[in-house]
Amino acid sequence: MRKVFQAELQTIGEELINLSKLVAEAMERAYESFSNADTEQAQEVIAADARVDFLQNKLDEHAIDILALQGPVASDLRMIVGSLRMSASLERMGDLARHIAQLTRLRFPDKVLPESMTGTFDQMADLNIRIANKVGELLATRDLNLAAEIIDLNKQIDELHAGVFRAIAADDWNQDAPTTTDVTLASRYMERYGDHGVSVARKVNYLVTGEWEPQLE
Amino acid sequence: MRKVFQAELQTIGEELINLSKLVAEAMERAYESFSNADTEQAQEVIAADARVDFLQNKLDEHAIDILALQGPVASDLRMIVGSLRMSASLERMGDLARHIAQLTRLRFPDKVLPESMTGTFDQMADLNIRIANKVGELLATRDLNLAAEIIDLNKQIDELHAGVFRAIAADDWNQDAPTTTDVTLASRYMERYGDHGVSVARKVNYLVTGEWEPQLE
Repeated sequence: MRKVFQAELQTIGEELINLSKLVAEAMERAYESFSNADTEQAQEVIAADARVDFLQNKLDEHAIDILALQGPVASDLRMIVGSLRMSASLERMGDLARHIAQLTRLRFPDKVLPESMTGTFDQMADLNIRIANKVGELLATRDLNLAAEIIDLNKQIDELHAGVFRAIAADDWNQDAPTTTDVTLASRYMERYGDHGVSVARKVNYLVTGEWEPQLE
Repeated sequence: MRKVFQAELQTIGEELINLSKLVAEAMERAYESFSNADTEQAQEVIAADARVDFLQNKLDEHAIDILALQGPVASDLRMIVGSLRMSASLERMGDLARHIAQLTRLRFPDKVLPESMTGTFDQMADLNIRIANKVGELLATRDLNLAAEIIDLNKQIDELHAGVFRAIAADDWNQDAPTTTDVTLASRYMERYGDHGVSVARKVNYLVTGEWEPQLE
């Protein structure tokens, strides 16, 4: 029984890792479409999100089956319930990447970002992709240093996000109102994507140590 | 055993209803602070959100205890797992009401909204408060007509949200860029709040009927 359970738990872990890879790729491709005003690629990202939703649903059904058939308790139970929370965060990361791609489509053939903002958003996208990749690594290895690193990367996103609002409020901001709206939304999507990565990292840390706040070794 | 379980399930239901009341009140008071540039009331809403987080956490621990001690299966198990999802949605509604209050504080002593937008936002806030109240009623009565009504109210919010973007893109929009950003964010928070209400409504509908899409009788 115990052996079967461990195999099931392993499968759930692999499904989470798979989801984290898909949402890392979704952000990478969504941001590429966003930078290049590539509406075809944006459309592919939007279509691919259905697969993330499908896999999240499959993972959740799998977790419920385990709860029903194996009746896990203590840390095993917490791991299964935690996987439901983590799959929800990963699914939401997929949605946010899709929202970036939707902005691309909405403004096509124009680019969403004014030239002055591309540096900031390049950094936010890069940090988010690194966060999603580290989430996958953390799920695979349970190396909790990765959880602390994810939190640190997300702090950098928060600073960049605040910088976007400062830029919008500055005297030399000369963009039209719809551009201001799009930049605001895109920055918010970037910020939320990172937050969900942190949620997964904290959850793994909690499941391993019982503490929410990861400590660097 | 069965009787104990039903009592536990009842308690979880009451905790969800309690959360829905708190987040309805949070939106009501947050929007009042937002309309009146009342920074004291905004601060109270922000502080009160800790209670929502605490109660969500308590509900989740309770649900995990039930899973561990009673090992429910079939529809009982789905109800418990569903309650974890619903508590997460309700907690997020509390966060979004808090975000509205945070905008109030950020712009104090100015009001966040230009005069031309108050009518639209009054309607969005009113629809959201009605959604949260109907979520509580739905949880209490399982009258699935309420689920369909919630979905309909949320469609009205989506239309108002789209109207905000049209207003921002119109020739006569003459607000400065930070105002445009705040209006964009506030509208997004309103839209997301309603979406989470719909998530809870669909979940209740699914648990009762096995279908995601509520049908009006």
